[in-house]
Amino acid sequence: MDVKEQILKIGEDALAASRALAKLSTRKKNAILEAMAEELDAQRAFIQAENTKDLEAGKEAGLNVAMLDRLELTDARIDGMIKGLRDVAVLSDPVGNEISTWNRPNGLEIRKIRVPIGVIGIIFESRPNVTCDAAALCFKTSNAVILRGGKEAIHSNLAIAKAMQNGGKAKGMPDNAIQLIPTTDREAVKVMCQMTDYLDLIIPRGGEGLIKAVTEMSHVPVIKHYKGICHTYIDAAADLPMGWKIAENAKCQRPGVCNAMETLLVHKDKAAEFLPKMGEILEARGVELRGDETVCRYIASAKPATEEDWHEEYLEMILAIRVVDDVDAAVAHINKYGSGHSDAIVTQDEKAEKTFLAEVDSSSVYVNASTRFTDGAEFGMGAEIGISTDKLHARGPMGLEELTTYKFVIEGKGQIRE
Amino acid sequence: MDVKEQILKIGEDALAASRALAKLSTRKKNAILEAMAEELDAQRAFIQAENTKDLEAGKEAGLNVAMLDRLELTDARIDGMIKGLRDVAVLSDPVGNEISTWNRPNGLEIRKIRVPIGVIGIIFESRPNVTCDAAALCFKTSNAVILRGGKEAIHSNLAIAKAMQNGGKAKGMPDNAIQLIPTTDREAVKVMCQMTDYLDLIIPRGGEGLIKAVTEMSHVPVIKHYKGICHTYIDAAADLPMGWKIAENAKCQRPGVCNAMETLLVHKDKAAEFLPKMGEILEARGVELRGDETVCRYIASAKPATEEDWHEEYLEMILAIRVVDDVDAAVAHINKYGSGHSDAIVTQDEKAEKTFLAEVDSSSVYVNASTRFTDGAEFGMGAEIGISTDKLHARGPMGLEELTTYKFVIEGKGQIRE
Repeated sequence: MDVKEQILKIGEDALAASRALAKLSTRKKNAILEAMAEELDAQRAFIQAENTKDLEAGKEAGLNVAMLDRLELTDARIDGMIKGLRDVAVLSDPVGNEISTWNRPNGLEIRKIRVPIGVIGIIFESRPNVTCDAAALCFKTSNAVILRGGKEAIHSNLAIAKAMQNGGKAKGMPDNAIQLIPTTDREAVKVMCQMTDYLDLIIPRGGEGLIKAVTEMSHVPVIKHYKGICHTYIDAAADLPMGWKIAENAKCQRPGVCNAMETLLVHKDKAAEFLPKMGEILEARGVELRGDETVCRYIASAKPATEEDWHEEYLEMILAIRVVDDVDAAVAHINKYGSGHSDAIVTQDEKAEKTFLAEVDSSSVYVNASTRFTDGAEFGMGAEIGISTDKLHARGPMGLEELTTYKFVIEGKGQIRE
Repeated sequence: MDVKEQILKIGEDALAASRALAKLSTRKKNAILEAMAEELDAQRAFIQAENTKDLEAGKEAGLNVAMLDRLELTDARIDGMIKGLRDVAVLSDPVGNEISTWNRPNGLEIRKIRVPIGVIGIIFESRPNVTCDAAALCFKTSNAVILRGGKEAIHSNLAIAKAMQNGGKAKGMPDNAIQLIPTTDREAVKVMCQMTDYLDLIIPRGGEGLIKAVTEMSHVPVIKHYKGICHTYIDAAADLPMGWKIAENAKCQRPGVCNAMETLLVHKDKAAEFLPKMGEILEARGVELRGDETVCRYIASAKPATEEDWHEEYLEMILAIRVVDDVDAAVAHINKYGSGHSDAIVTQDEKAEKTFLAEVDSSSVYVNASTRFTDGAEFGMGAEIGISTDKLHARGPMGLEELTTYKFVIEGKGQIRE
C-alpha cells in the first residue's frame, strides 16, 4: 500500500467509526475515558521507554534543549494526561443538546440540535501529550479523530495512542475512533488535507509555518491559530495604577504564550504621566522596550521602534510601545497590526470602552483586565482544543461545544408543501 | 492595473468598508435598505435596458431558453427584488445580540456577542437578482460584500449594483460596502479565492462545477451547497396513506430544486402493500421509476436501477426506489449515498424515529413531513442566503444569523493572571 492508499484507508475507517460514535451514550463515553486513563497509567513504563527512543533520536538529530523538553514525557506529564482524561470525562457532553426549538404555523416543530462534526484531523508538532488531549476532546464529542504528530515524537505518540485504543476498546470504544498516522512521510499530510470525502475539519497545532502550509494545501475546512499579537491600550481615562499592573501582567507573567501582550498603546494625554513609571516597572522585569519618538522621550532606555515592530509576535521579553491620539487611533492600529486574538483597553470612560469593545475586530476584547485570561480553562470551558483566530466556525478559546455542529430535526404529522 | 491588482484593491476597500459597517445602527441600515429599494424602482428602465443587452448577447451566444429565462429581469422580478430589500429591512438584526453571558470566580464577566463576519465574497452564475438578494443580506448583517456574477449577466448585475450603491450612499452607506467585480476575466475568481488578507468567507452559488472549482482554488473558507440527494424512508410502522402523500409531494411538487426527493426507501415488510399504489400515483404524475428487483416485481413499469441511480440528483421527474431490510439499512443507505441535505422517515414507531433522527447525518432530518420544507422561509428565518451542506460553520438553511460570527467581550476591574 502506498502512502495515499494508506491514508485514504484511515479516512474511510474513521468515517465508519464516526457513525458508531454517534450512537454512544455519554455514560459509555465517560467509562471509556476512564478506561483510557487506567491503561495510560498501566502502560507508563512502556510509554516512557518509547519516549526515550524519541529523546535519543532527537539528541542525535541535534534538537535544542527547548525542543527536547517539549518532547519529554516525565511522570508529571503522564500524570497530567491521565488527569486530563478524567477531567474531560467529568465535563458535560454537548452532543444532543438543543440549541433552540420553534413551531411553524403549519404545525411543524423544528429543533436545532448539537451533533458531532464527524471526522477531525489534528496535525501537530513535537508535544506528544497533544495526542492524548486532542483525542480525548474529539472522543468526548463523538468525533472520530485522525492524529498526525511530528516525526520526532513518533514512538511516543504511537505508544500513547495504543494505550488509549486498548483501554478504550476493552470498554466498547468503536474501532478506529482514534487513529494515529504511523508513517512520518510528509505526503501523508497532503493526502489528509485533500481527502474531503472523509475529513470534515483539520485543526493544525504548531508554528506559523505548519499552519500556513496546511491552510494552503487543504480543501478540507481548517480552524487555525496563527499568531497572538495582543495589545493593551491605556486610554485618556485610564486608572493608571491599574494600567501599570495590567500591562506588566500581560507582558511578563508568561511572555512566551499567544495571549501575552506584544504592543502597548498609550493615549497621548497620558503619555507623560504613564510612560516613565511603566518604563521603570518593565525595565525592572528585564523587558527590552522599543518605542516611537514620544515613548523614547519619556523612557530613556527605549530603542526606536520600526514598522516591523508593530507586526511582531516577540513571544519574549520585548515590548513595542506607541503613543496614539485617541481610542479611534488605537482601534485602527489594532485592526491593522493585530492578529484578531486578544486586545484590552484600560479606561474608566464608558464611551471609550464601548467604542473599543465594538470596533476592535478580535476574538476576545477586554476592558480593565489582562489579555492573559484568553484560555479555555480561564473562560470556564473546562478544556481547550486550541484558540482560534479564525471567524468560522469557532473563534477564540475552543472547548467541547466548538467541536460540534448542529442539525435541524423537524417533526410533522404528515405535512406536505403546498 | 492588471486583474490581480484590481481585485486586491477591491478587497482592501471592502475591508475598510467592513470597519465602517460595524459602526452602523440597525435603524440606519434599515433606512439604507429602504433607499436602495426606492432607487431600484426609480432605475427600473435603466436596469431593464441593461438587461436587454445581456439578453441579446445571450441569444447570440446560443443560450438555451431556460438560461435566457433565468437571465431576464421582468417587472415582476424587479418587484421581487424591491420587496426582498424591504423584507430584509423588517427582519431583526442579529448583530450585537448576546449569545451567552457568564461570570468567573475572579469577577470577570464574559459575554459572547454576535458580530459581522467581515468581508464576504459571493460567486454566482446567471441569475442577476442574486446581486440584490445577497447584497441585502450581507449589508443587513454589517458585512462588506464582493459580488462576482456570471459574464452573461454582467450588464444587469452592474446596473443593479449601481442602483443599490447610489440609493444607499444617499442615506449614508459607507463607500465600498457593496462592490461588484466589473471584469468578467476568470482570473478574478482565482484572485478572490486566495486573498485571505481581505476575504473572510466565500459563498459560491451555482452548479456543482462552479462550487467544486471554487473549493479547490480557495484558501478562504467556503460555505457551499453541493447537491440535494434527498431520501424518504417508509418504515415498517409507517402510516401508508401519509407515506403516499409525503412521497408524492417530495418528488413532484417541484422536482427541479435541491430539497426534492431523489430516492425512496421502503421497508421490506411494507413493500407489497405500499409499492403498487405508490407506483400508480407517481406514474399518474408522469414520474419515471427506477427500482431494485423487489420494486420491479411490484411496479411493472419500473426500470431496473443501477448503482449510479443511488448517487443521482435527477432534478426532474425520475425517482429511484429501493427496498431495505430495516431502519438501520435505510440510515446506512442515506449516509452512504446522500448529500447531507434533507431526509425523512415516515413512521409511527418512536424507536425507529429516534434511530433515524439521531443517526442520519444530514443537515435537516424529518419525521412524517415532506423534505420540501427545507428552506429559510419555510423554517421561519425570513430570508435565506442559501442552504449549506457543509458542517462549518453554517448547516442547512442560512439566514441572517448564519452571516455572523461572535466575539468574547470580557469586562474586569483590573484582574491580572496569577
